[in-house]
Amino acid sequence: MSDKLRIGIIGGGRIGRVHAINLNRVAGVDVRILADPFANADLEAFCQEQNIPSVTKDYKEILADSEIDAVLICSPTDTHASITREAAKAGKHIFCEKPLDPEPDVIRETLEVVREAGVVFQIGFNRRFDHNFRGIRQVVDQGKVGDVHVVKITSRDPEPPNPEYVAVSGGLFMDMAIHDFDMARYLAGSEVERVHAAGAVLVDPAIGEAGDIDTAVVTLWFANGALGVIDNSRKAAYGYDQRAEVFGSAGAASSENDGASTVRISGADGVVAEKPLYFFLERYAESFAQEMREFAEAVRTGTAAPCGPNDALQSVLIARAAKESLQTGRPVAVERA
Amino acid sequence: MSDKLRIGIIGGGRIGRVHAINLNRVAGVDVRILADPFANADLEAFCQEQNIPSVTKDYKEILADSEIDAVLICSPTDTHASITREAAKAGKHIFCEKPLDPEPDVIRETLEVVREAGVVFQIGFNRRFDHNFRGIRQVVDQGKVGDVHVVKITSRDPEPPNPEYVAVSGGLFMDMAIHDFDMARYLAGSEVERVHAAGAVLVDPAIGEAGDIDTAVVTLWFANGALGVIDNSRKAAYGYDQRAEVFGSAGAASSENDGASTVRISGADGVVAEKPLYFFLERYAESFAQEMREFAEAVRTGTAAPCGPNDALQSVLIARAAKESLQTGRPVAVERA
Amino acid sequence: MSDKLRIGIIGGGRIGRVHAINLNRVAGVDVRILADPFANADLEAFCQEQNIPSVTKDYKEILADSEIDAVLICSPTDTHASITREAAKAGKHIFCEKPLDPEPDVIRETLEVVREAGVVFQIGFNRRFDHNFRGIRQVVDQGKVGDVHVVKITSRDPEPPNPEYVAVSGGLFMDMAIHDFDMARYLAGSEVERVHAAGAVLVDPAIGEAGDIDTAVVTLWFANGALGVIDNSRKAAYGYDQRAEVFGSAGAASSENDGASTVRISGADGVVAEKPLYFFLERYAESFAQEMREFAEAVRTGTAAPCGPNDALQSVLIARAAKESLQTGRPVAVERA
Amino acid sequence: MSDKLRIGIIGGGRIGRVHAINLNRVAGVDVRILADPFANADLEAFCQEQNIPSVTKDYKEILADSEIDAVLICSPTDTHASITREAAKAGKHIFCEKPLDPEPDVIRETLEVVREAGVVFQIGFNRRFDHNFRGIRQVVDQGKVGDVHVVKITSRDPEPPNPEYVAVSGGLFMDMAIHDFDMARYLAGSEVERVHAAGAVLVDPAIGEAGDIDTAVVTLWFANGALGVIDNSRKAAYGYDQRAEVFGSAGAASSENDGASTVRISGADGVVAEKPLYFFLERYAESFAQEMREFAEAVRTGTAAPCGPNDALQSVLIARAAKESLQTGRPVAVERA
Repeated sequence: MSDKLRIGIIGGGRIGRVHAINLNRVAGVDVRILADPFANADLEAFCQEQNIPSVTKDYKEILADSEIDAVLICSPTDTHASITREAAKAGKHIFCEKPLDPEPDVIRETLEVVREAGVVFQIGFNRRFDHNFRGIRQVVDQGKVGDVHVVKITSRDPEPPNPEYVAVSGGLFMDMAIHDFDMARYLAGSEVERVHAAGAVLVDPAIGEAGDIDTAVVTLWFANGALGVIDNSRKAAYGYDQRAEVFGSAGAASSENDGASTVRISGADGVVAEKPLYFFLERYAESFAQEMREFAEAVRTGTAAPCGPNDALQSVLIARAAKESLQTGRPVAVERA
Repeated sequence: MSDKLRIGIIGGGRIGRVHAINLNRVAGVDVRILADPFANADLEAFCQEQNIPSVTKDYKEILADSEIDAVLICSPTDTHASITREAAKAGKHIFCEKPLDPEPDVIRETLEVVREAGVVFQIGFNRRFDHNFRGIRQVVDQGKVGDVHVVKITSRDPEPPNPEYVAVSGGLFMDMAIHDFDMARYLAGSEVERVHAAGAVLVDPAIGEAGDIDTAVVTLWFANGALGVIDNSRKAAYGYDQRAEVFGSAGAASSENDGASTVRISGADGVVAEKPLYFFLERYAESFAQEMREFAEAVRTGTAAPCGPNDALQSVLIARAAKESLQTGRPVAVERA
Repeated sequence: MSDKLRIGIIGGGRIGRVHAINLNRVAGVDVRILADPFANADLEAFCQEQNIPSVTKDYKEILADSEIDAVLICSPTDTHASITREAAKAGKHIFCEKPLDPEPDVIRETLEVVREAGVVFQIGFNRRFDHNFRGIRQVVDQGKVGDVHVVKITSRDPEPPNPEYVAVSGGLFMDMAIHDFDMARYLAGSEVERVHAAGAVLVDPAIGEAGDIDTAVVTLWFANGALGVIDNSRKAAYGYDQRAEVFGSAGAASSENDGASTVRISGADGVVAEKPLYFFLERYAESFAQEMREFAEAVRTGTAAPCGPNDALQSVLIARAAKESLQTGRPVAVERA
Repeated sequence: MSDKLRIGIIGGGRIGRVHAINLNRVAGVDVRILADPFANADLEAFCQEQNIPSVTKDYKEILADSEIDAVLICSPTDTHASITREAAKAGKHIFCEKPLDPEPDVIRETLEVVREAGVVFQIGFNRRFDHNFRGIRQVVDQGKVGDVHVVKITSRDPEPPNPEYVAVSGGLFMDMAIHDFDMARYLAGSEVERVHAAGAVLVDPAIGEAGDIDTAVVTLWFANGALGVIDNSRKAAYGYDQRAEVFGSAGAASSENDGASTVRISGADGVVAEKPLYFFLERYAESFAQEMREFAEAVRTGTAAPCGPNDALQSVLIARAAKESLQTGRPVAVERA
């Protein structure tokens, strides 16, 4: 590896661009090329502004370039696994957006290729890099909550996706709650063994017609004996509601939402504070930046990624168990990794 | 009825005394007599201090006294139903501590006697009179959260009961969570149709040996389509944790714990606020007083009690369904009232 | 003294009645008589409801009654000093509403009579008994803020008094801020040596026409070297704003307002919490009760009152210095006690 | 001006580097050169990392370069005025760190040169760009607090400067509180007409020996009739305390400190939240970035800077009046601009 870590980004959509901007602020990193089959003038202007020297329509060009150390896979979900395998075989370190694939066996095979290639593999659960959730985790690690008894997560979006998207999204558990399943494992410091899911269509009947739910309450049983509960909604009128709590034998650690400011207005109708930041790009802006810093660090030092192969698999296994529980009405054991 | 409402209290234990003290502060109410089979000098001193003119060992004396308008039944749980029936037949208005009985059929028969007697019957779910929970309910009634989608309740005790008590308590759901089941119905404005319960023994192995759990996560399905979730623990190191949230189509209303003061100490280790008030006597002191005021008001005006016969039955039905769900590992339908 | 402490109340207005109700809840206390020159059917009904056996138009009847141990002086301010002297000479322990008198020399002479009589004398600065302010003081006493550097008090009323009252009130400093001057001494644990006051008429021009101000910022210099600052307003649109902060070498302790509940409503316009409790009767309800408990305790145990003669004098001296500073535009030394 | 705004930075110390990094993230801006008389390998490495192509020891080189559109003056305070004049005469738009100069007449003459040159001039009161303080200002502008009655600012540093620095700093008012004086004007929307300052040496006797104070309470009279109060300390044990409140006829808007996260730990000793962010580089990181975005925008659009010439002068005039008030013990009128 040269002095600087040379990175190629595969996929120039919203999240690919966010990563590009953030990587530009990481010392010792050079984003050299961005690949997107729909590369156009707009993408070229973006790359120019961000000092990314090359744009290509063919990601294989990146994989073939021996000067590239690592790739970011920000392409559509159904290409994640195959590109990951190709990149691993080409010896590139990999950051891949979640999920790696909806099918556990595809994930397993892909991770086996990664393992054989000996490259760093990081999966894009950015919330692990968030100041609030990581803050809770640190408190747990310091022993301040004692043994973990209950993990609670509230995760609500400000607006539902449109029904067309819902139909192809894989459903609330695979598309939205998968972040919360990973967070539950992260906060509990333990794997999920069993899941019970209750769901309802309360936000938009069109979501139900598309075969999905928009509201859920999920119970988790962890290997360490703790219980977990997640509640999800596709629409919170007040914005993006992202809170967590870990309760244990010595106390509890919890986090509140972030607002745009700490300003409170005291008036005749009460004391009004800011709503939560609108959605994930605002709320998790700093976590995306930190995610890139730690990926670069893992590659540079040759250490394991902070969110790695097992995390890519487990969250999908839990999402599938939740879906089955919703359909059968019973608790479902999470498949062994 | 004379100018003043004349009340007899059956049971001179902790809660009976709390009610006596509070009733003494309600205008237009006269506590005339207190009955307890173990009445002793200590109880007599209490009554003297509270200006309660008579003490007896036999509650039947109260029921036979035509000058008594209403009774408070604060005796042991296994006597609630029979004394309620006797009191109703004697034409006394009734306030009865929860639960009326653990057996639904006994409750049904007792309530039928009450109905025939035409007396006011109030069951002791004091939390409905709490400023925080009632505050949430008022916000819901004002339509500020829109249609209810999710009701969340956190209910944790500061210390577990001793194992001897646990063995005869009827279990966490009947003994402790029954308050939360009533609260869930109150906040949702809807009956619970189905329950799923997960439980664990994490606080004290002796509780498990006594055949009970000390930690629980309960999912509720309401008749109006909403979902609910309750998490319980027998021991929170920081005190009595009593919070609720109602989330709906237009927003959410939530409450925090009450502390002894609003004081915050900013120091080198952080900004420290007060713990929650220690336990129910401190936390719900004002709700117990309000409960008595509203019982007196219902009797005086001949209106329905704010927490009545159906509430006495439903909470027990939900507790039983939760227990069955825990044992079978499946969701259980709540028996019809 | 008999078994019970026998109390007579002089003045049956709002505050006299509040004390009567609270004393009725203090064990070992008997309110025996209430005197008011305007005693009427309404006051008699109040006394009957509160089990106060006698009502009289002449407070001298109370002073002459050898069975009365202590008196509460809740009559108009201009009678406080003379009745205090009479009561002291009659050997009654005294609780007197603030201020004892606006004139320092009258206060000094009166306190000398009290001293000679050897009776307990407590002045009615009820806020010292408030859970929030006392909470701050306890933190200071525990050394958690270290040496006191700055004491800050915000004190705003929800509504201004009417201009007629303003004209005879003695002005904002003597009538309203006097509580804050006492609080500043209480929190700093030190006497005030010098004062600078800035004032403005911003709430209501009629207040200015009556010769008073409605908005003030007062700087205090304490004997222990600390500085203090108080800001006052006669009208806060959101209710009664009562906060304090003590900042020192090791940290800070501060208190927030109390609301009717902890309920927060999250909606499209923000997260709305309760306003402060409306005014002093709601906000300081519990402090008035505690004030009576501690007065009764001081009398019963023959110990010094928790808020005594020096407190009655110092607050008036500070108020006068503040008034002079406002008029002269310069800092003014507080007269020696 | 070319497509991109070409900027030269004068002064490569801490704040110069912060601005360089932030400007690198502003679209349409090119930092072309950095001048520092002590330019060394470390500074060159910094410039290389930030893609700043040139480094020089002589700032005059920047002023002589016709390709440079604007300069940032981040050199020592005693050079601000002279470099500003030179830059203005060279036709460069100017961002200058505060204060422009401690002497009002020097400021006036310098601003006159700027005015004649017709260049944009922005002074570095970065806190105006802070989300919390700007949030308060927006609430005031929206009329939600009505007419402004009182502006309150708390401003405390986490650690005092060393006594050597104190001796040459110009004193607490000119060095530290000058930010608060500007903030008071910004929040009140009005000029300060008169000042009263109280001060004390409570943090470190060495500060007193150096002829300065470390603790202050300042009263302000605004032209619009409002009052203001600022309290300062050179050392808060819990970190950087930066809060403000605007109180008015319709309500109040206030801001709290920012912490590193919203995490709260509930344990046996209370509920612990994060301390404030440590110092200005952490606390105001985003305000420094926004300050650069708005400077670039003002230059690009040829509009007035958001914090301009009058702001540079007024804050110094207030600081001088505060110093005189402290020395004379009397309120002092702020010199006319």
